[in-house]
Formats: sequence, structure tokens, C-alpha cells
Amino acid sequence: MAQDTRERLINSGLRLLHGRGFNASGVQDITADAGVPKGSFYHYFSTKEAFALEVLERYWQGLRIPLKLLRGSSVAPDERLRKYFALQAEAIARGKFEKGCMIGNFGAELSDQSPMVRERLAVIMAEWTRAIEGCVREAKDAGTLRSGLDPTAVAGFLTNSWEGAILRSKIDKSSAAFDHFSNVVFAVAFNS
Amino acid sequence: MAQDTRERLINSGLRLLHGRGFNASGVQDITADAGVPKGSFYHYFSTKEAFALEVLERYWQGLRIPLKLLRGSSVAPDERLRKYFALQAEAIARGKFEKGCMIGNFGAELSDQSPMVRERLAVIMAEWTRAIEGCVREAKDAGTLRSGLDPTAVAGFLTNSWEGAILRSKIDKSSAAFDHFSNVVFAVAFNS
Repeated sequence: MAQDTRERLINSGLRLLHGRGFNASGVQDITADAGVPKGSFYHYFSTKEAFALEVLERYWQGLRIPLKLLRGSSVAPDERLRKYFALQAEAIARGKFEKGCMIGNFGAELSDQSPMVRERLAVIMAEWTRAIEGCVREAKDAGTLRSGLDPTAVAGFLTNSWEGAILRSKIDKSSAAFDHFSNVVFAVAFNS
Repeated sequence: MAQDTRERLINSGLRLLHGRGFNASGVQDITADAGVPKGSFYHYFSTKEAFALEVLERYWQGLRIPLKLLRGSSVAPDERLRKYFALQAEAIARGKFEKGCMIGNFGAELSDQSPMVRERLAVIMAEWTRAIEGCVREAKDAGTLRSGLDPTAVAGFLTNSWEGAILRSKIDKSSAAFDHFSNVVFAVAFNS
């Protein structure tokens, strides 16, 4: 039951902090959404910031699952990257371009407000970038990364550009940003 | 004096809404920062949302100034783009990577909260993208855009990727995202 209350709070946090953001979601909104007494929040989490870190962790665990698409397989590395981004774009379009990415949202809203959240976001972005870099390096070894490109720079650029595309899709409520991303990236960075 | 109060409120809005975001900045914070009576806020602005739109407008007026660097000149179009992004990156680094871009911040925080702000952001992003597209088209005409690339897709991609780079620089407190952006973009999209 205790575990259940904690789980409910985290699930409500995933919904509210992702959709409305950190500052627009009060503890009372979260406990009401979870259907638990307001006092229970501070039994499980010392501060709203500590809660946000746990919610972010849970969100990131979800985002890590499709990273397995990037790992070694019979599919060519640039095709794995293309598939990885295409599946994310489809999921975002199914969600009607709402909410955006919690990592980008927290980065925009909290980087200057919460050093703890910012530091954790930096570690998450680095881990995400490394997963992409692994695939870019394989493309380089396979001779399908355009010559002269540095895999570290390409991986950082792709990860950041993808966050930019998600942000634009959230503003425009449109897939155009994803189309532009894949049309340009796969026309110029890879030559399979 | 009336104009002065309104100006002070907008200047405080530029500082607070950009730095802390919309939801973390109360009307009282804004009037206190401006050194004006709290009641005066609603004399000039019907809602905090209407105020945010005016602040956004003022911010965008500032961002439009360096767009002139992109317009026809003796400098080659891809060099104009490179210079335009490099100057923005330098300004952000001088500001210690704080605040990020108000357009991106509002996009992340308010796209699902305020239809008015979201619609205005979409128009601003479209105008910004068109300014970049003009320069990309000139590069195409000059034969320095990599063949096969669509200027509309490239311009959208550059604008969105730039917002993504600003967001990453805000999370990492580092210029690396700008270096990755320019290293990759100017190695692959243009061949001057």
C-alpha cells in the first residue's frame, strides 16, 4: 500500500510535470491527481525538487528502452539511427505533439533554478549522446559516415538537433520538424 | 510617467520571464522588480498571459536585429550564416549560458498552457526560419548548398537545431553544442 501511494505519486508526476511543467504543478495538484492525502507527499519525498528528480529518472528509464535499437545488429548503423528517430517521431505525432520531451522541458524551465536537476539532465544527455555516438562510430567503421566528420560532434549535434525538432513540433503541432531533420541528416551526414 | 511604468514592467518581464520562466514569476515579483505598485500591473496588462505576449514581442524585436547579417551583401551566403550563428553563440557564452532562448523556453513551458503564446511562437519561428531560408536559397543559387538539399528543409532544420543547441548549452553550461552545430553543419550542408 505504501509502495502503491509512492507509485501513484510518481505516475501523477510523470503526467503533470511532463505536461504542465514543474512550476505550474503544485504538490496539491499532484496528490489530488494521485488520489492520495496531501500530507503523504512529504512522507515519500523530502522536497518537490527531489520528487522531480525521481520522476525524471522514471521518464529516462522509459526513453532508454528504444536505445537498444541503436545497438549492434544486422541492420546497417545509419538505418538503425533512421529507424530510431522515425519511431520517436511517430510516437510524438500519436500524442498530438503535446508535452514535448521532459528532458528538454526541464532543461528549459529548471536549468537555472535547480542545480540538482540541471546536473542530472547533463548526465542523461551525455548518456543519450553516447548511445547515439556508438552507432555513428559503427557507421564510420562501415564507411557510411560522410568522410571528415567527427563521430563525437555528429552524435552531439544529432541529439541536440533532435531536442530542437521536438520543441518545434510542440510549438507548431506538426511533424514538419521531424521531416526536415531526417531529410537533411540522412541526405548529408551519411552516404549509405 | 505612465509610459515609464509600463516600460519598467516590460523590462522586468524580460529579465524575470526569460530567467525564471512564466510560471515561476508572479505578478508581485514583476512589480517588485520594476519598483512599481502591484496594482499598476493590471492597469497596463489585462492578464499575465497578455503581459508575456508583449514581453515576447520585445524579445523578438531584439532577436530580429542580427537577422540583417543574413541579408544580401558582398559576403558569401554560407559565410553570413556561419557569422550569424557564431555571434549568437558568443553572446550566449558571455551570458554564462544562462536563461537560454526565451522562444525555446516559452515553447517548452507554455505551448500546451497558452494557445495565444503558442500561436505567436509559431509565427515567430516561421519568420525566423524564412530569414534563414533566404540565405540558404542564395547559397543554392551560388552553388554552395550541397546538391540535392531543399532550402526549406535546410532552413527549418537549422533553426530548430540551433534552438536545440541553445537548450543543450543551458543544460551543460558549455559551448560544446555550438561547436558541434557549426562543425557538422558547415562541413556537410555547404561546400564553399
